[in-house]
Amino acid sequence: MPTVASRAHEAARSIQKVEAFFKTYNASVNETPAIADFTFGNPHEMPLPGVVSALKTHAEPQTVDWFAYKTNEAGACAYLANALTEELGLPFSEEDIALTKGAFGAIKMCFTMLLEPGDECIVPLPGWFCYGPMLAAASAKEVQVPLDPSSFDLDLSAIADAITTNTRIVVVNTPHNPTGRIYSRADLQDLADLLEAKSAEIGRRIWILSDEPYRRIRFDDLGFTTPAVVYPHTLIDYSFGKILLAPGLRLGYLAISPTLPQSEREELQTLRFAVQMADGWNVPDATLIYAIPDLDKVSIDIASITRRRERMLGALNQWGYQMTKPEGTFYLWGRAPGGDGDEFSRRLQDSGVYVMPGSIFDRPTDFRLCLTATDEMIENALPFFQAVANEMPR
Amino acid sequence: MPTVASRAHEAARSIQKVEAFFKTYNASVNETPAIADFTFGNPHEMPLPGVVSALKTHAEPQTVDWFAYKTNEAGACAYLANALTEELGLPFSEEDIALTKGAFGAIKMCFTMLLEPGDECIVPLPGWFCYGPMLAAASAKEVQVPLDPSSFDLDLSAIADAITTNTRIVVVNTPHNPTGRIYSRADLQDLADLLEAKSAEIGRRIWILSDEPYRRIRFDDLGFTTPAVVYPHTLIDYSFGKILLAPGLRLGYLAISPTLPQSEREELQTLRFAVQMADGWNVPDATLIYAIPDLDKVSIDIASITRRRERMLGALNQWGYQMTKPEGTFYLWGRAPGGDGDEFSRRLQDSGVYVMPGSIFDRPTDFRLCLTATDEMIENALPFFQAVANEMPR
Repeated sequence: MPTVASRAHEAARSIQKVEAFFKTYNASVNETPAIADFTFGNPHEMPLPGVVSALKTHAEPQTVDWFAYKTNEAGACAYLANALTEELGLPFSEEDIALTKGAFGAIKMCFTMLLEPGDECIVPLPGWFCYGPMLAAASAKEVQVPLDPSSFDLDLSAIADAITTNTRIVVVNTPHNPTGRIYSRADLQDLADLLEAKSAEIGRRIWILSDEPYRRIRFDDLGFTTPAVVYPHTLIDYSFGKILLAPGLRLGYLAISPTLPQSEREELQTLRFAVQMADGWNVPDATLIYAIPDLDKVSIDIASITRRRERMLGALNQWGYQMTKPEGTFYLWGRAPGGDGDEFSRRLQDSGVYVMPGSIFDRPTDFRLCLTATDEMIENALPFFQAVANEMPR
Repeated sequence: MPTVASRAHEAARSIQKVEAFFKTYNASVNETPAIADFTFGNPHEMPLPGVVSALKTHAEPQTVDWFAYKTNEAGACAYLANALTEELGLPFSEEDIALTKGAFGAIKMCFTMLLEPGDECIVPLPGWFCYGPMLAAASAKEVQVPLDPSSFDLDLSAIADAITTNTRIVVVNTPHNPTGRIYSRADLQDLADLLEAKSAEIGRRIWILSDEPYRRIRFDDLGFTTPAVVYPHTLIDYSFGKILLAPGLRLGYLAISPTLPQSEREELQTLRFAVQMADGWNVPDATLIYAIPDLDKVSIDIASITRRRERMLGALNQWGYQMTKPEGTFYLWGRAPGGDGDEFSRRLQDSGVYVMPGSIFDRPTDFRLCLTATDEMIENALPFFQAVANEMPR
């Protein structure tokens, strides 16, 4: 008699490499304390004062129902709809916004809303490692489609080839984790044209999930286009966890594109709460909902992230590393000297420098650095990056 | 081309009556302000000071990773394992505890962990109205099985009749919402014997989900037995939302029974995090995790709930109402005078007294009162309960 459902095993299998890395990392840090930690998108400095004060302010109850059941509170949704309208240039209404437990919650909501068991969802490779397990939990199937191997742009012919009659969602992650690529409006328009044609061909609507948690973390004054502008059948997920560097506080949203045909837009709006409830009351804590307007004014210092990007890229390129210059996110992506990301990260680890091997992203030649590391960590680490580059054959 | 997945529509259909009630309720309250609100399990007095101070205390960061990604934090899980060991008399270890977003999150986790699409889950009737939509989201099937119509005890022969080869979970909700029944150890033992026999018969393990959010809200010094004591294949869900009367703060857990055969216990422990992540990072906010030991010492005033129970039961019984005396929870359940719960609640509503019609629980002759209403609300409302009883035929 099997104990556990196949979807639970499938989810575990899908995240197995990350869990194994995390265990090794924890064990290693105990043995060799980190002089520099470039692994997960976690904070290495004290939380932003604006986050702390927002939490404390809104923990103070003002009404008897301060901590009563909260859903898609009208004020918070209206605030976000206005902010999004201004930011993305589309006329969002408060009914287009579902308040969720971070982007994880929003992605979960999208999957429950759109996927039948057995449906396929196309995700980018390299890409975030949690789409797979989440799709497994929804009894759906992850289809990894490689990005262009040099530019990390969308590879439309690869996407076209991957589409079957079971395809339901194409995930666009922009700015892209781990490469930092921001997709151009022209490229998104081409994707939209492809998906219109393919939807007609398979007789079923293919949606875009635009995964935008890094949307406001961009370099060099680069612009941003959401796929919702060019493709009406788009849902947008967002998290406050990145810009606040506080992923332990779960606040995000799923937004319905206002360009969706009205009948479908209303259908999604109407089902919004039922899906959130059915997914385990997928609504942020009351305190965070009240805090949205305050938190929306808080951000990590993008100038610091930019400075770290420059410092790391300058040094690594000089030592022969082949790095991708990110346009957004707080990651650096590149090829490990010698082309073995696991070996590379093990060697650095011996010196207390922790990076994420590309194997976690199914790209074992590469590695990822997270620039939430401090300036001090970067200076500590650079000599070891230089040494390892010298040790390992190009 | 259908817009939305069938599971989303199914979830919405399943919660449709509650959503419709909620809309009517909101519209009515705007027109006829509540002089007494006995509907949802929401607070009607200012939050408990212990909750507010715990939130503020633990919003103050003590380390750089204060708001970093949190999972099943060892300290919090160990604390809860110890507390549960003492409370339930079973030797829980910290690995048996998964920290979840309230009981909703824990129930979600249980469903993802155990159910294949198409599997059946037996739930009590009358009973909580959110099992159905959550099962729909998991592409599983709700099978409502009536409790004994007078005692509201488990009806073992009805459960036996409902079991098929697809049965995977039987939900036991104790203390029971809406009737307040606490199941005896002897009855739970009989259920355990039945499920052992039936599991062998169908060649597949049937689990108990013991839904215990009201476990610590009991009257008259009554004891409590968790089904985990008599049936090893039991998962326990708990929420802090009831005892703190703060359902807008999402804190709960799923606990694996320590009596589970070791290999299965370890299998569940090992899959714990993958399932939580795959369900949308189903982990409480960092602040609440830190606050667990403090929050565990806070409780609504059970003496006040008891006093309200006595006052309402005394008055209603005197006017000919047929009420069930609850052993736990903060609800009162009874038959509407005249036997039409919808009409009964409409009449009270016209006077600003809001109750929950039994139709929401698929028991249209009955109604539910929530004793989180204030003493003042109760005194305001009682004359109208008397008047409606006089108006409506017995």
